[in-house]
Parts: sequence; structure tokens; C-alpha cells
Amino acid sequence: MAKEITSRTDNYSQWYNDIVKKAGLADNSAVRGCMVIKPLGYGIWENMKAQLDKMFKETGHVNAYFPLFIPKSFLSKEAEHVEGFAKECAVITHHRLMNNPDGPGVVVDPSAKLEEELIVRPTSETIIWNTYRDWIQSYRDLPLLINQWANVVRWEMRTRPFLRTAEFLWQEGHTAHATKQEAIDESQLIHEVYARFAEEYMAMPVIKGAKTANERFAGAVETYTIEALMQDGKALQAGTSHFLGQNFAKAFDVKFADSNNKQEHVWATSWGVSTRLVGGLVMTHSDDEGLVLPPKLAPTQVVIVPIPKPKEEIMKVAEEIADKLKALNIRVKIDRDDQKRPGFKFAQYEMEGVPVRIGIGMRDLEKNVVEIARRDTKEKKSIELTGVEKYIDDLLKEIQDNLFSIAKAYRDDHISVAETMDELTTILEEKGGFVKALWDGTTETELAVKEKTKATIRCIDEENTLGSGKDILSGEPAKQTVLYAKSY
Amino acid sequence: MAKEITSRTDNYSQWYNDIVKKAGLADNSAVRGCMVIKPLGYGIWENMKAQLDKMFKETGHVNAYFPLFIPKSFLSKEAEHVEGFAKECAVITHHRLMNNPDGPGVVVDPSAKLEEELIVRPTSETIIWNTYRDWIQSYRDLPLLINQWANVVRWEMRTRPFLRTAEFLWQEGHTAHATKQEAIDESQLIHEVYARFAEEYMAMPVIKGAKTANERFAGAVETYTIEALMQDGKALQAGTSHFLGQNFAKAFDVKFADSNNKQEHVWATSWGVSTRLVGGLVMTHSDDEGLVLPPKLAPTQVVIVPIPKPKEEIMKVAEEIADKLKALNIRVKIDRDDQKRPGFKFAQYEMEGVPVRIGIGMRDLEKNVVEIARRDTKEKKSIELTGVEKYIDDLLKEIQDNLFSIAKAYRDDHISVAETMDELTTILEEKGGFVKALWDGTTETELAVKEKTKATIRCIDEENTLGSGKDILSGEPAKQTVLYAKSY
Repeated sequence: MAKEITSRTDNYSQWYNDIVKKAGLADNSAVRGCMVIKPLGYGIWENMKAQLDKMFKETGHVNAYFPLFIPKSFLSKEAEHVEGFAKECAVITHHRLMNNPDGPGVVVDPSAKLEEELIVRPTSETIIWNTYRDWIQSYRDLPLLINQWANVVRWEMRTRPFLRTAEFLWQEGHTAHATKQEAIDESQLIHEVYARFAEEYMAMPVIKGAKTANERFAGAVETYTIEALMQDGKALQAGTSHFLGQNFAKAFDVKFADSNNKQEHVWATSWGVSTRLVGGLVMTHSDDEGLVLPPKLAPTQVVIVPIPKPKEEIMKVAEEIADKLKALNIRVKIDRDDQKRPGFKFAQYEMEGVPVRIGIGMRDLEKNVVEIARRDTKEKKSIELTGVEKYIDDLLKEIQDNLFSIAKAYRDDHISVAETMDELTTILEEKGGFVKALWDGTTETELAVKEKTKATIRCIDEENTLGSGKDILSGEPAKQTVLYAKSY
Repeated sequence: MAKEITSRTDNYSQWYNDIVKKAGLADNSAVRGCMVIKPLGYGIWENMKAQLDKMFKETGHVNAYFPLFIPKSFLSKEAEHVEGFAKECAVITHHRLMNNPDGPGVVVDPSAKLEEELIVRPTSETIIWNTYRDWIQSYRDLPLLINQWANVVRWEMRTRPFLRTAEFLWQEGHTAHATKQEAIDESQLIHEVYARFAEEYMAMPVIKGAKTANERFAGAVETYTIEALMQDGKALQAGTSHFLGQNFAKAFDVKFADSNNKQEHVWATSWGVSTRLVGGLVMTHSDDEGLVLPPKLAPTQVVIVPIPKPKEEIMKVAEEIADKLKALNIRVKIDRDDQKRPGFKFAQYEMEGVPVRIGIGMRDLEKNVVEIARRDTKEKKSIELTGVEKYIDDLLKEIQDNLFSIAKAYRDDHISVAETMDELTTILEEKGGFVKALWDGTTETELAVKEKTKATIRCIDEENTLGSGKDILSGEPAKQTVLYAKSY
């Protein structure tokens, strides 16, 4: 199996596509740019969803569901928003098909044309704020802390499974507040939740920071982002949280009576992460043998393989171990196939990224041991049967930590500093990763650097590491330290 | 609050709309026929999803996700299928908007017309079977037991929240099997799962049976249905499971090599339940004071209300009780509002259907008791503080059972027998409910009865209660006993 994957050094992009395909994460579909998420890929997303949903609820949010369709006129109400999304909208114009009068098949029924076209939501600010107008009258109705799990569509021209697809799955939080500060606090709270989820569950270290005006969400006053680093030195925007000011409240006329009965526009946030995270997970940990999954998100954490084949005595022990692991809430699977050889199975489970494999053969049982192989380091050990469940429970934690440490060491090693454009260009070309540099704060300079290097400002450095000085390109007085990187 | 609801006897339909609105289950949206599912309505759906998902996984199914869009030509491949869905399709014709050259706003960009129109999925058989062709080569790839949680769109002309909406949320299972019998067994297994879910979780008794040819899913060989009875004597189709034969395998050319290496078409099933169940839940249990929810699905099972207002000593006891209930996995909420009066709050929680309310006042505390009110019977009791959590745990089970018993008694009392058309007409008009009658097995008679009575055959009676005899309308020899009812 493993030989079928391109190596990362040969072609990282092809390696990624191979993993997605061979591990069974996703397939292309008959619809341009839309993928089929296969059971393993969806299982990872389900685990991500479950944990994120828990974190949202712990911070006071509830779920709701808003329509898939948005009337075309809604999009135009917030000027920057429509500018950002109009060019990639799936547009519904009719509501009926009819038999083709000129041959076989069906055609659009011209008499079923909609009065106003509907857009398949690319994001839901407009339909939600149009609804909030009816839900919010007084400060007593605030804050409104709502999240939705949904599919959205953006007609992207170049797509890649998980990373950029025409349809994707995500969550979008949309909150309404009585004060500016409360809305800013909310957007930062979620920014923290995203960072914690990425690091503690995905084992994917992230840099937190604000986006530049040019890279902000269309309609936002401030966008906070978490930026991860993939193994090829390119950055991945992994989750954004937006402070929207009163832009949408004004566009949709959402006002509330404050405690003095004065009418004010409501303050807003929105925030989202998507199935893109599955792509980020793959590119953070996986290797040339296949997928590597952090135990906390792996659909199967432990697989038990009888060697060479299922046999009564072996299966009895396998069942006992599985029961003990389940009692510790460990997701375990017993391989009951009696056709394939162990070597084939081992390669398959390595490809699928199962964190721990337990091999049980008759000779092991005579010695009262089992063989335990970890996916991350590929180490194998003989472990006493007695207490093996505790060993595995600890091992899963160790693997989780190890994956984070490796990813963090790589990431930390790929944060450089450039004092000149030459340095920036050289680092981006030869080493990759994030490069800190001084910036004059203008979109003009930002775009000029992008033009020359293909790198963008991923976020503003919260620490302003480089202090004061001159912009790396324009030579004008610098406003901030920023992190440049090429990105997905 | 309660006074704002129309009573069931005055106008059942208006009562339903009032409950949906006043309890905060759903709102109409700006998009024709699409609803906004509010947090309480969505919370019920989340609990339904969690339980159903568990039951599907326990029976060997895994989740995946297929594209929202279906190429128009796919729909035509199965002749009956396209006939069933073509008239209610949302059709995407373009993928871009542009600034309106003649004024403000945006218009569809005529240069961004799709080569082939896309349909927003009304159900996913076609796109899924087109995908299965690549996934299935040999009998070793079977069975394929896949479910998807998704939104679907059917452009219905008359819509009602939850019961019939243009967009709705559902799950759709799509399985592939090597033999006819295995596929039939699968469709019946899920039919059983649906019935068990309806009765044990929704406390909603159902009649199980097969649909007539005329009422089958478009493209199915056999459709199994669970039919529930609403309080107004009308039936609600609550979940269907279809044996699809080889229809879709043939339409999409999905074959497998059997163990003798002979190519065969694959056998299929599909099955689904939707947010319609939320409507069924409302109409099975609720009353003129508002929503009544079975504890197993209630987002909040117990609410603790300090009387008359939050006060340190009361809140301390409230927290203690809440902690003990949480330890028993009971979903409990403490009301911390210090503005509204208890009477107002009580009415509000009755409207929202919280199964158990605990009132705590200073006088109660002096006597070491709390007041416990159940939503279903509206009984109130003083209960000793010590062991109150055990009392409530038992009470929740009792309420669950009681709701089922009441619904079942009503349902059983509304299964009648008609030996003549006059009897059928009279029962349907005066009493409602299910009416058993003999049927000659022809669609012609079925439609003629519908024309005369507005009732349809909900399902074929598994027991054939009425044995042999003559069709109630045609006088021809009867083939089966069937259950007629008016329905949603």
C-alpha cells in the first residue's frame, strides 16, 4: 500500500492528494469542486464537531438553524460583504423541472422562474441579521449567543479536498451584544477557544493574531485568526473570529432599547471553522506511510489484530482487552477479517492513521504478552497482558503530546526574521515558514510584497517583536511587526 | 402567556402554529417555505439526532457526506424517481453575481451560466449511487452501510413549520448489499429502529406496515412506514425505510463480482427521518398551556425556580440539587432571573414544555422540602430535600411512561373498522383516526376512496385483521386489510 503514496520530499501536493485518496478521507464527486467525505474523513470531522460543540456550549452558546437560501437583495445590504462574496455564488433561478419536450430527460421549466433569485449561503450574516431584527427589542434580549452547524457554498475556481472546496461543512457563530466591548470580548473568547482546540485536540500549534485590513472578513471591523504551519512551510488559516462592529446591525436595522430606553444599534461578532481543519490535521502530522492522527480525534484509537488469523484463544483475549479499553472510553476495533495477511493489515492501519495497534499471536499468549505498535514513532514493544489497558491509556496521551511537540518544534524552527526584502525572499524560497518583518501598515505595501514574493501577511504579531524601525519594502516608518508566509 | 394560545378544540391547526411560535421552536424566514429553527426546536432535534445516530452506529452504520448539488442529468436516470421529484426542485443555473449595470444592487452575471444545471438535493439516491459505482467492485466491498445527516430541499407549495418545509434537516441512510434478502432485512431492521425510537424516546406510538404501490417512495420496490396519530385524529407519516431492489444499481450501472466472480447488480435500501418528527412530537403530547416534552428528548428536563426571587440561601440549595441531578445525567437549569415574577416564569416553562419544575421558597426550606410540579399532569407535591434527586430521576421515567400511555390509549381508541363506505366516511368525519377496511389491491380503488373521503391508505395491515371479503368500495374480492386515515 504505502508504496502507492508519493513521498513528501518528491511532491508535497501530490503526497497530500494521495493520502486523502488512499486513506479514504474523501473522493472527488461528479459536481465540480464538491467532494464526497468518506467515513474516515467524516469520522474525524464528527470528533472535531463534538469537541467544539462542547466548548461552545460551555461558553454559553446554543445551536439553531437558519435557511440555506439567501434572497439576492440581502447580500447587497452590507457593501463590503457583497463585494467579498458576489463573485462566487451559486444562484437559484427556478423551482421546477419538466420533461424535455424535444427529447429524453428533463429541462428547466421556464414558467417556474423565481421572482427574486436565491443564493446558496456562502456565509449567513445577512439572513441571520435579518432574523435578529425580530428577535431583539431590548437589552434584556441580549446577548444572543447562537451557533449553527451547516454547509455553505463558495464557487471557488481552484479546489482541493478539505482545503478549498465549493461546498464545505462548518460552524458559524453569530452573536449580538449591547456594547462594543462585550462584542470584542466575545470575538476574543472564541479566538482563544479555537486556539485551544487546535493545540489540545488537533495537536496543531497555532499563532494567534489579528488580520490586516486587507485580509479581513468582508464586513468585519477586526478579524482574529489562528495560523498553523504545514510541513511544506506554508501557512494555513485555521479559524477566524470577527468583530463586526455595528455594520450588519446598521445594514439590517437591528436596534435595541438600552436600560434608559434609548434606541441603539446592536454590536456583533461572527466566527467559524470548517472541514478545512481536516486538511490541516493531515498536513500537520502525516508521513510517507500515510495518515497520522492525534488520538483525541482518531475515529479508531486502537486496533487489535490477531496474528496470523482470528483463532478462538486469540479472539477471547482480544475481546477482553477491547472491553477493558472501552471501559476507559477508548475507541477500539477488533480486526476479524480472516482473509488478508497481517502485513497487509498493518500497512492498511498505518495508512489510516490508527494511533495504536495491538498484535496478538499464539507465541505472545504463551508468554502472556501482546505486541504494541505506535503509529507516530513506529516503535514496537512487548507488553504484559496484565494492566495493558492502563499502558495503552497512557500511551495514547503520550502520542498526543508527542505529535504536538514535534509539530511545535518544526513550527518554532520555522519562524524567522527578515530585515530586508532580500532576506524575506530568500527565507521564503529556501526555508519557508513564517517570517517576521516590519510593516508600514499600508495595504499598498502589503500587496507589493505579495506581488514580489507570493507571501501574504498571515497576521499582525501580538508582541510586536521587532519594535520600531522601517518597513522592509517601502522604507517608511513601521507601524507593526507582521508575520509573512506563503499560504494555502 | 398561556392565554395567547388558541385552544385545541377551537382550531387545532392554529393551536399548532401558536405553540411553534410562542414556545420558540421555529420562526418563518424571509425565504418562502424555509423556517428558522430556534434554539429550543433545534435542541429537541439535537437530542433526536444523538439517539438515532447511536442506534444507527449500534447496528453497524457509519456516517459520510455527499454533495448538496446533483447534476440535472442524474435525476433522469431512474424513471420513477425523476417523476417523483422533478416538479419541486430548486435549480442552480449560474455561479456568479455582478454589480447591476443599470442601478444599485447585484444581478446574475449572464456570462456565468452553468453548462449543466445543478439541482439542490431533494434526496441523495442519484448522487450516492453514482459514487457507489466507484466504491463497489467485489462482494468483499459489501455490505456498504452508510448514513448521512444533511439538509434537503423540496419546493413544496403549502408549507407548515416542521411538518412540511421547503428546506428540512434529515438523515438518509443508503446501503448496498450482495443479495436481495440482505437488502430486505436491512430495510426492515431500520423500520424496527424507527419504531423503537418513536415509541421509546418520543413516547409516540406508531403503526408499522408497508405502503401501497401508489404511496411508495419514487423508485422503491417496497416502502415500510411508521404512522403516528396526532391529537386531531390525523395520521403523520413519521419515518420510511425503502427496499430499492436493483433499480438504482441498474440506473447507475453498479455491479459487483460475486464469490464465483460473476458480475451482478447491487441491491439497495434507503431510509430517512427528518425534522418533521419535531412537529409530530408537538402534536402528540402538547396541550392548551403549551409544549409537553417527553423527558428523554427535552433539552431542559428540570428547571429550578427560586421563589419569589434568587436569594443566597435558596440559591445554595438550588446549586446543591442541580449538582446532584447533573451527577445522574439529568439536564437541569437554574433560573437566575431576578426581574420576572414566579407566576410569569411558571407559565413560561409550561409553554416551553420543561417536564419538571422545582420551586424553592424560604418557607419550603424551613420545612426541608421543595415543591415539585410535573408538566404532564400539572400535579404539585412537597418533597423532602433529602433524596430529592432520586425522586426526580424516578419521576422523569414516570412522566416518559405516562406520556406514552396516554398517547397509546388515544391511538388505540382511534383504530376503527369500517365494513362499508358509509361507515368509513362517518368514522373519518366524526371520530377521525385510523380505519381498517378491506381493499382490492388496486390503485384505482385507492384513489377513488381518497377522492370521496380525503383519506389515504397509510399502510397495509400486517395482521390482515379483517381476513377475506370484499373491497369496501369496488366490491371486488379483497386482497388485504389496510388502514385508512386523513393525514398531514
